Amino acid sequence: MKSSPITLLSTLFFTGLLACQNALATDTNQSVSQKLQQEALASSLAFDIVESLTVEVGPRLAGSEKDLIAVQWAEKKLTSLGFDKVYKEAVQVPVWQRGEAKANIVSPYAQPLVITALGGSIGTPEDGISAPIVRFETLDALKQADPSQVTGKIVFIDHITPRFKTGKGYGMTVGGRSRGAIAAAEKGALAIVIRSIGTDHDRMAHTGMMRYQEGVDKIPAAAMSNPDADLITLMLKRDPNVVMHLEMSPKNLGYATSYNVIAEVTGSSKPDEIVLIGAHLDSWDEGTGAIDDGAGVAIVTAAGHYIAQLPTKPARTVRVVLYAAEELGLIGGKSYAKEHQAELAKHYIAAESDFGAGRIYQIDFNVADKAFAAVQAHTSSMQDNGVAPGNNKASGGPDVSMLPGYGVPVASLRQDGSDYFDYHHTPNDTLDKIDPKALAQNAAAYAQFAYLMAQSEIELRPLTPKAK
Amino acid sequence: MKSSPITLLSTLFFTGLLACQNALATDTNQSVSQKLQQEALASSLAFDIVESLTVEVGPRLAGSEKDLIAVQWAEKKLTSLGFDKVYKEAVQVPVWQRGEAKANIVSPYAQPLVITALGGSIGTPEDGISAPIVRFETLDALKQADPSQVTGKIVFIDHITPRFKTGKGYGMTVGGRSRGAIAAAEKGALAIVIRSIGTDHDRMAHTGMMRYQEGVDKIPAAAMSNPDADLITLMLKRDPNVVMHLEMSPKNLGYATSYNVIAEVTGSSKPDEIVLIGAHLDSWDEGTGAIDDGAGVAIVTAAGHYIAQLPTKPARTVRVVLYAAEELGLIGGKSYAKEHQAELAKHYIAAESDFGAGRIYQIDFNVADKAFAAVQAHTSSMQDNGVAPGNNKASGGPDVSMLPGYGVPVASLRQDGSDYFDYHHTPNDTLDKIDPKALAQNAAAYAQFAYLMAQSEIELRPLTPKAK
Repeated sequence: MKSSPITLLSTLFFTGLLACQNALATDTNQSVSQKLQQEALASSLAFDIVESLTVEVGPRLAGSEKDLIAVQWAEKKLTSLGFDKVYKEAVQVPVWQRGEAKANIVSPYAQPLVITALGGSIGTPEDGISAPIVRFETLDALKQADPSQVTGKIVFIDHITPRFKTGKGYGMTVGGRSRGAIAAAEKGALAIVIRSIGTDHDRMAHTGMMRYQEGVDKIPAAAMSNPDADLITLMLKRDPNVVMHLEMSPKNLGYATSYNVIAEVTGSSKPDEIVLIGAHLDSWDEGTGAIDDGAGVAIVTAAGHYIAQLPTKPARTVRVVLYAAEELGLIGGKSYAKEHQAELAKHYIAAESDFGAGRIYQIDFNVADKAFAAVQAHTSSMQDNGVAPGNNKASGGPDVSMLPGYGVPVASLRQDGSDYFDYHHTPNDTLDKIDPKALAQNAAAYAQFAYLMAQSEIELRPLTPKAK
Repeated sequence: MKSSPITLLSTLFFTGLLACQNALATDTNQSVSQKLQQEALASSLAFDIVESLTVEVGPRLAGSEKDLIAVQWAEKKLTSLGFDKVYKEAVQVPVWQRGEAKANIVSPYAQPLVITALGGSIGTPEDGISAPIVRFETLDALKQADPSQVTGKIVFIDHITPRFKTGKGYGMTVGGRSRGAIAAAEKGALAIVIRSIGTDHDRMAHTGMMRYQEGVDKIPAAAMSNPDADLITLMLKRDPNVVMHLEMSPKNLGYATSYNVIAEVTGSSKPDEIVLIGAHLDSWDEGTGAIDDGAGVAIVTAAGHYIAQLPTKPARTVRVVLYAAEELGLIGGKSYAKEHQAELAKHYIAAESDFGAGRIYQIDFNVADKAFAAVQAHTSSMQDNGVAPGNNKASGGPDVSMLPGYGVPVASLRQDGSDYFDYHHTPNDTLDKIDPKALAQNAAAYAQFAYLMAQSEIELRPLTPKAK
């Protein structure tokens, strides 16, 4: 069809009007984003939330009594902060009790050690295990060892976790924690005690989840502090025959009910479309769970509150999810994906805060390649808050990492994790490790992100398959 | 008498010759001092010694089995390092066993705490003590409190130890540790739990010696980590009625024999005159006693060794004293002063290294005022090693601090103690906290100091009384 001059003029007029509207909408979005940023940076709300959680609840191992107290705390806190809906969804979680863990070197130089049981580990016999230590520098070295070196011994993996801003050193060693007991048992070891997965030199051991494998003997698994690993390594240089005594009494006690706790700011025009910002409510039991993941709970809760208080609600629903039992294997995240499967097509984007309280320096996405530049432009007002544009290879965070498998776009708001693995999973995970200003910067970034995503006109799907 | 011209010339001639000899001697002293410095800075000996002590012995609480193993270690190590004499002197020391120490908040928010018993404390009844906490910001505030506020409660002193290069923050709070139990018991408290005397934010409690007083009830005394003190303070802001449960099982078990271990490089021309450099061999039981006082043991032992290896021995005897039971109240130091009282007039000067392994930045003396400038000039070659001249108000170090009372001059080689009270008396007192280069700088300074003092022609006595 040939356009008449009138039609052409009319089309141009309406196109112009639309552009103008879009520009106005963009201006409004950026202006609200800036307002959210200013409000969050000036507020102590996020710190008040993590203080409340760590002081009034403290450690909250999934499946424990304190875990349920944390759930009550979360419902009450979210309700008090003006969300439209607050509800919880039951999740079955394993019950593991830490018990006691003691170790010492028997010979050649009797010395006590500082250790902790790894999560899920079985105990030793009541009178413990005494056996020579066999040291490996890595999990791979253990896997390559001749079983005759390992049988009847206590395996010691002496891997060292290097420090990076991104925290990637954790990924380089955590396999020894999660799969070391399987590899050691396959070669006949009696127990495994690893150098803690941590970048510190504190005499504290770092706990964390480990796994067994069907058909392979279950052996006790523990971590020792970095100074203790140094000590044993220096003993082994003097005498290859170092004997350790190990006593541990953890117990696996079946399953209990925990909950994902959810709160929403209902969208004004697309209430069935979801922008999900999450964190995990559970923690390990030795610190007070301030950085892992009280900080995340505080960040996404405060961000949701700032959006709930806006005079005009955003188009999409902003959903804050406080996941259950992340530490025990992303159990709340997996449960959420399963229970909400029918709704996942309506999840516009998701992100989880689970890397402490260090400042966010970059935002990465996992969206359709064709949408990446547009979504970067749409979130560019976050740069004022120190958040630079990043790449399109985000995982989104532990509990949302399964969502891209269902086609859900995700974002990773990258935090400076230089000191995160100094404290992670130790008694040192306490409130004093959080810088209130850095926490407020995080809350500002999540508020900006959630609001801008809830207002976005960009089609983020389908995800572009990523090279492995 | 009127001098003849000949006599005058002759006097001038001999005075000139003497000046020349002195100048030559000074040159030789400074040249040997520089040689000692270079040797120490290039050597790993001091680090090797503290590694040996912490790996092969480790914690060595005075009066324990490990304390005697440490004495054997010291005799063997000193003998192997070429001293002319190695011997030990018996010291009676109290036997205190740590047992277990557990505490938790019962209400309003149940949480476990990290605590440690203070040295010398009695235990609680077997089923513990549960009582409300009453908080004081300082020992003085406790002393001024009305007994009705305190009776039947657990006293919590929340003093904060500030960080200084000189370590003087310790002196500002340690009274709460040493005398808090007396003050609390005088007002009817059931127990006392103090904020640790430490500058860190690690979730580790700092132990250390405490005292009881005749005629005042003995109550259990513990320290909690700084994060735990923060936690209780935040709870008290929410609810003044915070109840703590405390269980401790330490025991006081009479007395045992320990030893001051002594080694000497015999003086070439004044063998009965002593330059004493000391450190303490005992340690607390939770770390491996690396900085307190393995470092000091290594520093003075290495310094003595370098002097023992010189082709020409110094004039005076250099005596290395590794004191027993410093931690339990300067017991080895007091015993030495008593046992060697007759010989103290022949002690030219004494200094103890007991402040970790931070670099020495200054040397202070306590000598006759008229000798001060001369002794500063005589030790000026230490400036090349980073040791600036200081004041004339030195204490000399804990175990030699009683010697000025007997007229013995002392020196304090001041170390940078900025981080010393992060680790002091905690499980974190381990080898990795020592910088080998800083330790070598210390050994160099002690070698220079001991040599120059053993060669000195300066009359350091009588001490000038110091204003209190």
